[in-house]
Amino acid sequence: MPRSLLAITDVDRAEVARLLRVANRFREVMARDIKKVPTLRGRTIVNLFFEASTRTATSFELAGKRLSADVISIKGKGSSLEKGESLKDTVLTLASYAPDVLVIRHQSAGACALAGRYTDAAVINAGDGKHAHPTQALLDLYTVEREVGPIDGLHVAFVGDIAHSRVARSGIAGFRMMGAKVSVVGPPTLLPRHAEESLGVDVSTDIADIADADVVYVLRMQLERMGPGRLVPSLREYAATYGVSHARLRPGQRVMHAGPINRGVEIADDLADDPGTLIVPQAANGMIVRMAVLYDLIAAPEGASEQRSALGDAVAV
Amino acid sequence: MPRSLLAITDVDRAEVARLLRVANRFREVMARDIKKVPTLRGRTIVNLFFEASTRTATSFELAGKRLSADVISIKGKGSSLEKGESLKDTVLTLASYAPDVLVIRHQSAGACALAGRYTDAAVINAGDGKHAHPTQALLDLYTVEREVGPIDGLHVAFVGDIAHSRVARSGIAGFRMMGAKVSVVGPPTLLPRHAEESLGVDVSTDIADIADADVVYVLRMQLERMGPGRLVPSLREYAATYGVSHARLRPGQRVMHAGPINRGVEIADDLADDPGTLIVPQAANGMIVRMAVLYDLIAAPEGASEQRSALGDAVAV
Amino acid sequence: MPRSLLAITDVDRAEVARLLRVANRFREVMARDIKKVPTLRGRTIVNLFFEASTRTATSFELAGKRLSADVISIKGKGSSLEKGESLKDTVLTLASYAPDVLVIRHQSAGACALAGRYTDAAVINAGDGKHAHPTQALLDLYTVEREVGPIDGLHVAFVGDIAHSRVARSGIAGFRMMGAKVSVVGPPTLLPRHAEESLGVDVSTDIADIADADVVYVLRMQLERMGPGRLVPSLREYAATYGVSHARLRPGQRVMHAGPINRGVEIADDLADDPGTLIVPQAANGMIVRMAVLYDLIAAPEGASEQRSALGDAVAV
Repeated sequence: MPRSLLAITDVDRAEVARLLRVANRFREVMARDIKKVPTLRGRTIVNLFFEASTRTATSFELAGKRLSADVISIKGKGSSLEKGESLKDTVLTLASYAPDVLVIRHQSAGACALAGRYTDAAVINAGDGKHAHPTQALLDLYTVEREVGPIDGLHVAFVGDIAHSRVARSGIAGFRMMGAKVSVVGPPTLLPRHAEESLGVDVSTDIADIADADVVYVLRMQLERMGPGRLVPSLREYAATYGVSHARLRPGQRVMHAGPINRGVEIADDLADDPGTLIVPQAANGMIVRMAVLYDLIAAPEGASEQRSALGDAVAV
Repeated sequence: MPRSLLAITDVDRAEVARLLRVANRFREVMARDIKKVPTLRGRTIVNLFFEASTRTATSFELAGKRLSADVISIKGKGSSLEKGESLKDTVLTLASYAPDVLVIRHQSAGACALAGRYTDAAVINAGDGKHAHPTQALLDLYTVEREVGPIDGLHVAFVGDIAHSRVARSGIAGFRMMGAKVSVVGPPTLLPRHAEESLGVDVSTDIADIADADVVYVLRMQLERMGPGRLVPSLREYAATYGVSHARLRPGQRVMHAGPINRGVEIADDLADDPGTLIVPQAANGMIVRMAVLYDLIAAPEGASEQRSALGDAVAV
Repeated sequence: MPRSLLAITDVDRAEVARLLRVANRFREVMARDIKKVPTLRGRTIVNLFFEASTRTATSFELAGKRLSADVISIKGKGSSLEKGESLKDTVLTLASYAPDVLVIRHQSAGACALAGRYTDAAVINAGDGKHAHPTQALLDLYTVEREVGPIDGLHVAFVGDIAHSRVARSGIAGFRMMGAKVSVVGPPTLLPRHAEESLGVDVSTDIADIADADVVYVLRMQLERMGPGRLVPSLREYAATYGVSHARLRPGQRVMHAGPINRGVEIADDLADDPGTLIVPQAANGMIVRMAVLYDLIAAPEGASEQRSALGDAVAV
């Protein structure tokens, strides 16, 4: 694994498989009464979130603490990020404190790669604009492998705003890397151009085409994109045309959503509440997959074989 | 004690007495040079505050840390709580990380009870709308018992905005449970209807009626309720009619306030500064009572007897 | 050293020299793989920041954690500081939790001294209005001593908004205490009156007068001070007249800036990026100097000699 995780394509199929096995070991830790290991004691993780986040920020913070690292969380609000300092200068300052990892979320695509040029710390991209969100892809892969089965040969359909979604972009790349067939379904205004070639997916504007999928991945509809003169004319029309509900699913199809959910918009209220979806497992797996990534980047930089044995020790404590 | 603490009425008189004894043990810890015990090492507390708070949020965070727990604090600002995710979905996400306790403050009455349906974690209500604030009641009981004496037979008068105050609601129930006589004094617009029957208190609109009280509990006046056409016509008139000052007290009466204080509104400036009030002890006791509650919910779920001995170990370390 | 650090003038030359030696020991810790010592285990540091901050707040938080203290950070936003509680009442509340140190940043000069009257904790002024920022002065002294050489006899020129800068005020006092000659250069509207006498510095309004300086300390230009009818008519004019760039420096001059930087305003973009400046070392040293101050205030209150040996133990662990 490289020193940083900026995109899911930074890792190959074998590395993904190994990370998911490491995550499985942390799942065992979570089943214990005391859900904490000393693996990263004395290490420092800086979370730098320029965009609002609950689940990603919280799961990284908790992942770090359960590995016994010290975690500093900096949010855009209430920091001098508000004073308009450049990303470069902010990263140079934080890098000067010699953290082990910088976890960065930023509104601009490429921000995390840029940040990586100014620090020796490992950088984890926790979402940069509409570009990438690699730990989301990893947790999605882990969730499907665990709850549905081997990914190779599955069909995963992403539904909704493909064009603006880093969840979709990283997820598509991740599922394809692991051998799944991927298709995308959404209104023409929310599909990237030439998606067949650029993303290697089947493309449809007809929600009925999710019928073939084993997994239906529902994307958050950003409410600010909807309204007269915008990409989607109205919330009601979007829900009627592309909202995913029980009526549009066949038995056995599994539904995913990265959250936060707009109930009644991209997903029907009662479907969101259906315990058969993978939504709650996704959240739970987010923490253990992030533990695995943090562990991999910090504790085992020399290579996979040492890594596995070190984890053996770690989780035995 | 139940698995959660949603209202002061969740515990009975014996359980309150036991919690206050546990708090006393933590008072001893606070008298040490190193004010920390390993009791909750490896445990996770998630503070979820939808409303602004300094003292409650900080005292829970510090209580958790001094018990050696890991504490994650999520504020409404800067989290995806701003994106309008439902309380249910937020709680489901956080619950998926398997915390030991969720401490929740929310602007809506009943929010904590609702949250409790979606998590196996213990839930502590840190204030839900105008409904309840049980740890405030516990710290108030602890403070009076310690600084004034046995609560049974005391007379406690709550002054001000009774109708909108969770501090009053929980305090009234708590003091009555422990055997105090409780009365309420305030302008007619700020008294709940039928308070005599519904709350079991004496009711008066005349500030002179605090004369009989041993303890005068001054409630924060929410400034947004005052002004032409609102529940209280003017700040000046409220201060003149119901503001508590030395001139309105007789010797020996003790004054409480849950903070934050509006100096010169519900309480005179020089009274707020009088070291004879219980205001600063209330703050200090807030932390140790919250330590006791966290300890009780996490470390000793099986019952009171084990609990006490475990605490004996805990504070001996 | 006194119980608190409210201004750089609270310490004398010998104490500064000792603190910088302690900081050097922590520099050694930062060179280790595990950058953490158990020195302040069980101690509590409360960071109370009424003003936005990234570098100061983060470096204090990380300094505390790397000393193994528990750190609570309270920002103005999202706390009841927003409800308008008085500083006195906020401090009384926090003091009631018996922290070891309160680190306070506040928009008003004198706020930290005021706070110190209401707590037994040590108080560290992390910036109060335009008054003082003593840990900034200490880290600046440390940086110059390490990167440039002995301060005694050096010439340091502060450039820009001297009148409103706590960085300048503390820096001037600190450098003069250690034997440097200090001059200030800026537009007449941004120079304090009678600076020669009150601050003991040479005064100039001509940027060419930085030519004699060994160190050029560029001050942040507060953008809200610029515009028609304000202290500085325009950003462009300020940059042209007082902006520091390579063209205005002679070889060997070293440039400092406390950050955050306004690139292209008080400092040219390419100068800000020049690795020969002291800007990044200042940031890095901020953390270790703050570790030294925290250590000194908490772990070694009895005196310097014990202190040094205790640190010997601390960093040996």
